[in-house]
Amino acid sequence: MHRLCVHTITTKPWSTEECISRYEKAGVGGITFWRHNLEGRDPATVGEQTRESGLDIVSLCRGGFFPGQTTAARQKAKDDNLRCIDDAHALGAPLIVLVCGAVPGQTLEESRKQIADGIGAVLPAAEAAGVKLGIEPLHPMYADDRSAVNTMRQANDICDDLGSPEMLGIAADVYHIWWDPELKHQIEFTAAQKRLFAFHLCDWKTPTTDLLNDRGLMGEGCIPIRQISDWVDATGFKGYREVEIFSNLYWSMDQDQWLKKISDAYQQVYV
Amino acid sequence: MHRLCVHTITTKPWSTEECISRYEKAGVGGITFWRHNLEGRDPATVGEQTRESGLDIVSLCRGGFFPGQTTAARQKAKDDNLRCIDDAHALGAPLIVLVCGAVPGQTLEESRKQIADGIGAVLPAAEAAGVKLGIEPLHPMYADDRSAVNTMRQANDICDDLGSPEMLGIAADVYHIWWDPELKHQIEFTAAQKRLFAFHLCDWKTPTTDLLNDRGLMGEGCIPIRQISDWVDATGFKGYREVEIFSNLYWSMDQDQWLKKISDAYQQVYV
Repeated sequence: MHRLCVHTITTKPWSTEECISRYEKAGVGGITFWRHNLEGRDPATVGEQTRESGLDIVSLCRGGFFPGQTTAARQKAKDDNLRCIDDAHALGAPLIVLVCGAVPGQTLEESRKQIADGIGAVLPAAEAAGVKLGIEPLHPMYADDRSAVNTMRQANDICDDLGSPEMLGIAADVYHIWWDPELKHQIEFTAAQKRLFAFHLCDWKTPTTDLLNDRGLMGEGCIPIRQISDWVDATGFKGYREVEIFSNLYWSMDQDQWLKKISDAYQQVYV
Repeated sequence: MHRLCVHTITTKPWSTEECISRYEKAGVGGITFWRHNLEGRDPATVGEQTRESGLDIVSLCRGGFFPGQTTAARQKAKDDNLRCIDDAHALGAPLIVLVCGAVPGQTLEESRKQIADGIGAVLPAAEAAGVKLGIEPLHPMYADDRSAVNTMRQANDICDDLGSPEMLGIAADVYHIWWDPELKHQIEFTAAQKRLFAFHLCDWKTPTTDLLNDRGLMGEGCIPIRQISDWVDATGFKGYREVEIFSNLYWSMDQDQWLKKISDAYQQVYV
């Protein structure tokens, strides 16, 4: 359980304070905040409350969404990422997860250029703040409007193209990458470049009834979670295993029971 | 319009005979039959009716689904593919499109091995019958239960591993491959190997509300269809542009009007 981290989006009905107290009570080791958790709150105070509870702050989700059809839209995105870096610094989150963005009707090539440009533009601020940026490759079914970065290879290429800066790396989520025939190699390569920054868990249900909000609990789908996790651990990765589940189904149930299901499923994977 | 082919699944409410007569009347050049069109009918007779109408028979959809958890299940799949080859031969279809299959809970590595094994097992019959087999890489969102072959690169690897037989190639569908950062290169490579056997069109809608049956008409989504089509044509490909659209929405409308929308949209792309 000491390597279990839960993303607050996983228990979306709970307030920031409820997430902190319930996760701590359930024996969860780490917490990844989503940005809505900071709305109307002072990030530094949320950070203090979290550390007092004994929970580790693992990351802040999410920055990114860099592409835009106008210069103004792209500048707005950069500004938003700079605010996100400030918030992560104040909160005490060592990492921001980037969902890179895409614009329907704009070519993926163009979006990919804008993503590299956007990351390059905000990276100095992240370095100054001591906050890492982790590119999360998103499943190709999100290439229309969520991310033009859809494989570990592409994320690695962006890191290389930007000169392989120390504070830039990758957040690997099994949901997005499990199908990739290069997965084992890419995990090893990413870790060898010292840029495997985060590891996210959930499962792929058959059938999946909603492209965004029908993700499964570990064990109820077809992703070979333990195998992928073993590949990650074999690289020397010692970070958290972060449970990030978007699910209309699970959000509608009692969240204490849901959290219990999560910790049971987690322990089932890692017996 | 002479390069426009329509898949009968696109006008699913129509019978085999209706598809033939309405496509011909609409000025469509080619037809790809789905296997349900042959149920209760003699394939040779359907073939004759089609040729009499002036329509070209482009392919038969679909063979494949090779993986299975038991030897018996895999043998059953091979037998079914042999029947499909017989039917294609009798029908006069020069090509069978393969949706390769996947089994939830079985690793993709294992399914991929079983796919190569299954194709290898039925290939001699296809060669004897003069029927080509076209592997259709399916979008990674179908890796759970429809296909463990999710990129052009993987399909090319299978062709190479099987000794690059002349009668084995690839059916490229923009819906499944548009997101691939290697797409242009893979199209060129596939064509250079003389194995680009088919080219399918539809579009990706934002939002997509159903993983299987919410595909879009060309022009209403984010796929750069004309660009991909130009890459295909630049290789010297002279085959049909096949419209294959699974859509609960369009299947529920008047199918004559739907076919008119298809030919209008097609002409809009290729003005």
